[in-house]
Amino acid sequence: MTEAYVTLATTDGYGVGALVLGHSLLSHGTTRQLCILVTPGVSEQVRSALSQVYHNVVLVDVMDSGDSAHLALLERPELGITFTKLHCWTLTQYTKCVFLDADTLALQNTDELFTQPELSAACDVGWPDCFNSGMFVFVPSQETYEQLLDFAKTKGSFDGGDQGLLNSFFPNWHRLSFVYNMVATACYTYLPAFKEFGRNVKLVHFLGSTKPWHGESAAQPGSAYGSFVGAWWTIYRELVRPSMPQSEAKFDPTDAPPQQQEQ
Amino acid sequence: MTEAYVTLATTDGYGVGALVLGHSLLSHGTTRQLCILVTPGVSEQVRSALSQVYHNVVLVDVMDSGDSAHLALLERPELGITFTKLHCWTLTQYTKCVFLDADTLALQNTDELFTQPELSAACDVGWPDCFNSGMFVFVPSQETYEQLLDFAKTKGSFDGGDQGLLNSFFPNWHRLSFVYNMVATACYTYLPAFKEFGRNVKLVHFLGSTKPWHGESAAQPGSAYGSFVGAWWTIYRELVRPSMPQSEAKFDPTDAPPQQQEQ
Ligand SMILES: O=c1ccn([C@@H]2O[C@H](COP(=O)(O)OP(=O)(O)O)[C@@H](O)[C@H]2O)c(=O)[nH]1
Ligand SMILES: O=c1ccn([C@@H]2O[C@H](COP(=O)(O)OP(=O)(O)O)[C@@H](O)[C@H]2O)c(=O)[nH]1
Ligand SMILES: [Mn+2]
Ligand SMILES: [Mn+2]
Repeated sequence: MTEAYVTLATTDGYGVGALVLGHSLLSHGTTRQLCILVTPGVSEQVRSALSQVYHNVVLVDVMDSGDSAHLALLERPELGITFTKLHCWTLTQYTKCVFLDADTLALQNTDELFTQPELSAACDVGWPDCFNSGMFVFVPSQETYEQLLDFAKTKGSFDGGDQGLLNSFFPNWHRLSFVYNMVATACYTYLPAFKEFGRNVKLVHFLGSTKPWHGESAAQPGSAYGSFVGAWWTIYRELVRPSMPQSEAKFDPTDAPPQQQEQ
Repeated sequence: MTEAYVTLATTDGYGVGALVLGHSLLSHGTTRQLCILVTPGVSEQVRSALSQVYHNVVLVDVMDSGDSAHLALLERPELGITFTKLHCWTLTQYTKCVFLDADTLALQNTDELFTQPELSAACDVGWPDCFNSGMFVFVPSQETYEQLLDFAKTKGSFDGGDQGLLNSFFPNWHRLSFVYNMVATACYTYLPAFKEFGRNVKLVHFLGSTKPWHGESAAQPGSAYGSFVGAWWTIYRELVRPSMPQSEAKFDPTDAPPQQQEQ
């Protein structure tokens, strides 16, 4: 009956995001395991820092493996990172998991999520009949994994990523409150609701192309959005940067796409 | 067992919106009644055109009445139009209603909405734990009406409008698909989902400060958004404008706030 939070990083930028995320989960006293899937695009240094925070660092290399995910990838090369994300279903040492994007941050304990069934998630703000795949409750299963690969290969993904794929595969998903996956920009788009319900937010998601690790400039204390970025940077400065031998000079803040430079 | 679509207009701009909406509902063969609440801010001319399309044009004048809505308004002047909207619960000649904002447009028949319970609605894209109050299924009831007024007076509305009020009053609302209240801008914010699910959309909502009656310029055929504005203008040009004695010269496209210029 081991349960775990699971995330994914294919670059040092996302790896640093995962470090902050891991610390945020621990700081709110999670009783669950932390697990991360990493690819060779994450440097040794960041992987070593990750192993200080995560109970389980799993190296996944879809490109190099001879398994069905690799074969599927050859047919659907556009779904590169998606196939890596799907690997989370193979973590059958856990009975239930919560997947979290590496660009999320826990603001409160969210362990009650493990009482929810597969597939539970919160609405996507772009098309709320869909769930946002930055946070979802799932049950690892080799069978589901194979079905997902097969689905990816034969049907593809309507948005070219894991969100489209998972929404098509789990049309009867179970809806969770937005407080478990609040898109950081929601404080702007419907400010009165944020003022009314914002104190309940348990997980914030820095969705979109600008990530907190791209810079502290957005961390202005005046705005709610800025205070989330500020909270991210506080953890980064106090707990993540000191743990890395040569400080942040070594992680690439431009967050280049994953490369196969090391094995 | 009479059921009705209900909308609201306090200005000629919204009145013209309601005319297009009414035609769109009829063109898709609704078997339900059409009802509109109008205030004295709507000109005689537009009211007369409305009575050609709507089975029931109900004049509501919160400002002038001595009833409890008027008293509530004195305590919460910021909720002006909201108190007018709440009047839809007094339409007890109907057993069930679907409220539609005057800035919505039916693209398909939506009569199956009448099988849904009070209060059914679709997610708001800003904060999807809330429903968007541009479309909702309700059951007219004098008792609910009084409770709503009391709630408005004592608690107010967290967003200063009917959406905040109704969400607080109906926390256990029943979620309907986004296809029954698709915010027109959703075609931009998550285009792949729009491409996947857009053909199912039954009602489009021109939420925000720019309304179709402000001008045809947004009606560019290239974009999905433009084609919705174009569909609105087709109905306007073919069915609404000809029905008005002196064409659109008489309705104010700047859509000034409601005034008490006539009684
Ligand atoms: O180059 C990438 C892109 C994505 N991801 C992982 O996939 C998730 C989803 O991508 P992202 O958060 O950038 O997408 P968004 O939430 O902005 O749509 C990330 O949080 C990471 O866990 C990654 O490791 N490397
Ligand atoms: O000055 C106004 C503002 C609003 N309304 C009515 O209230 C609804 C909600 O307002 P609106 O659609 O402008 O708000 P949005 O959907 O853009 O938030 C309108 O569709 C109309 O039915 C009105 O009659 N007069
Ligand atoms: Mn993300
Ligand atoms: Mn509206």
